[in-house]
Amino acid sequence: MACTLTTGHAARIAARKNKWAQSTSGLADTYLQANLLVLPSRYAEAFRQLCARNPVPCPLIAESTNPGDFAMLKSHLPQVRDEDLAADLDLRTDCPRYNVYADGKLVHTAVNDILSQWTSDHVAFVIGCSQSFESALIRAGVEIRHLNQQRTVPMYRTKLPLNPSGIFTSSTYVVSMRPFRKQDIELVRRITRRYLPTHGEPIAWGWDALERLGIIDIDDVQWGHPPLTQDGRPLHEVFGDSENVPVFWGCGVTPQEAVMKAALEGTIMAHHPGEMLVMDCREDDVL
Amino acid sequence: MACTLTTGHAARIAARKNKWAQSTSGLADTYLQANLLVLPSRYAEAFRQLCARNPVPCPLIAESTNPGDFAMLKSHLPQVRDEDLAADLDLRTDCPRYNVYADGKLVHTAVNDILSQWTSDHVAFVIGCSQSFESALIRAGVEIRHLNQQRTVPMYRTKLPLNPSGIFTSSTYVVSMRPFRKQDIELVRRITRRYLPTHGEPIAWGWDALERLGIIDIDDVQWGHPPLTQDGRPLHEVFGDSENVPVFWGCGVTPQEAVMKAALEGTIMAHHPGEMLVMDCREDDVL
Repeated sequence: MACTLTTGHAARIAARKNKWAQSTSGLADTYLQANLLVLPSRYAEAFRQLCARNPVPCPLIAESTNPGDFAMLKSHLPQVRDEDLAADLDLRTDCPRYNVYADGKLVHTAVNDILSQWTSDHVAFVIGCSQSFESALIRAGVEIRHLNQQRTVPMYRTKLPLNPSGIFTSSTYVVSMRPFRKQDIELVRRITRRYLPTHGEPIAWGWDALERLGIIDIDDVQWGHPPLTQDGRPLHEVFGDSENVPVFWGCGVTPQEAVMKAALEGTIMAHHPGEMLVMDCREDDVL
Repeated sequence: MACTLTTGHAARIAARKNKWAQSTSGLADTYLQANLLVLPSRYAEAFRQLCARNPVPCPLIAESTNPGDFAMLKSHLPQVRDEDLAADLDLRTDCPRYNVYADGKLVHTAVNDILSQWTSDHVAFVIGCSQSFESALIRAGVEIRHLNQQRTVPMYRTKLPLNPSGIFTSSTYVVSMRPFRKQDIELVRRITRRYLPTHGEPIAWGWDALERLGIIDIDDVQWGHPPLTQDGRPLHEVFGDSENVPVFWGCGVTPQEAVMKAALEGTIMAHHPGEMLVMDCREDDVL
């Protein structure tokens, strides 16, 4: 199945028809992947500013043209035209799976669509995803571990505060993690640096980053799959005994964490972490 | 003197002629005030990205049109034209006073100009300043303590990390502090929120923010003057015994701290904290 999903449009159609319900990492190579957050319109301005003040975890790419629009997006990037984002689009069905929050609490996870929850008052935000620079890393010759193991990228809560915006006063970064060889870190930083709208360069790296981020256990992920060594053991087993170290990026699940921290009222929807909206434009179109 | 400096141009000329050599807080009411950082050109791209990734402490407003330009700026804000920034400008003289760094160390402070240090390889960056929303706060009826006491705003190092960019891997926020009554905090947040290019709403407030920011002693400032109560006592004396609490904003001295943390080689120049470049455009032109 995966091999036939070679475009963003094909990935969206497969998700719409419930034929693809897992991580989109590696899918539709070089097409832009994106996080989704859908809010009642009264929270839209505070969220827009949260993104503007925290562009590393929350790089805003686009939003609904008008409240209630699930098929039309306006671009926030001067280099991408509205019509090039996603031509045949239904935000209610085109992510593989979704999370649904009610009054700040997760009430449904990994559901196939949000057709019954969507209202004419909902505003969708499309946010860059670090899966969008994985193909550039592969081209540079480094291994993307979770992709090779057909697992979802590990994601963690941190204690790193976001810059507050309105109701969002106690939000913290969510990060994704990929292990790399120590000697490849500068290469990995240099390649991902250009991809500002898809989180850019890592925010922390090395085993000592765990304490700074407030991650207690590298094997205890909050989203995605626990990381494994190349031979399938828990990653902590190689602590101090391997050339591989964890490298952390800002993650577009941060808005879902922010929704819970702020206990937003009403129905909020988002993609199921790792299972992204795939766009018509390419990763390199956003540079 | 202050009363005659009613425009940005007048403030720059007074600084140029060494007739104004102190804080510009309250000067040239409603004219945009700005931080300055001048780097060897090889660091320009990493610094530009540091600003893009950390727009709250480092909101980039403009930069030298070309390396070596001290009289012409190009705007980074779509809402402000290059020619409206500052028409009669000499970045080497038009801040009241300057700091000079060599190989990451402060070697001159509060000097009147940087004429002898400036070279054709230097690139200047102009960054928003929170003194630019003080008049909006005054119009809303709240007191700006340091301004009433004719002192420079208190500024502090924090442990809050910036998102890394290239050589800038261990930078942390610098914050400015103004005390306000607890019941005015939401008003203060609302008024300053619009001023994204001059740091926007505060990043933290309340006495418990000190621990989160890593500020050990509210009276021990790293730049500016120590804060005082209305009747002139050290601020810590009213801890838990006053309606006033400290409110912290991202601060444009952050780049000077970043230069030291990254131990940048060569000659780097900046304004003397609190003594800003005053522009021709108004505070509300950047909204």
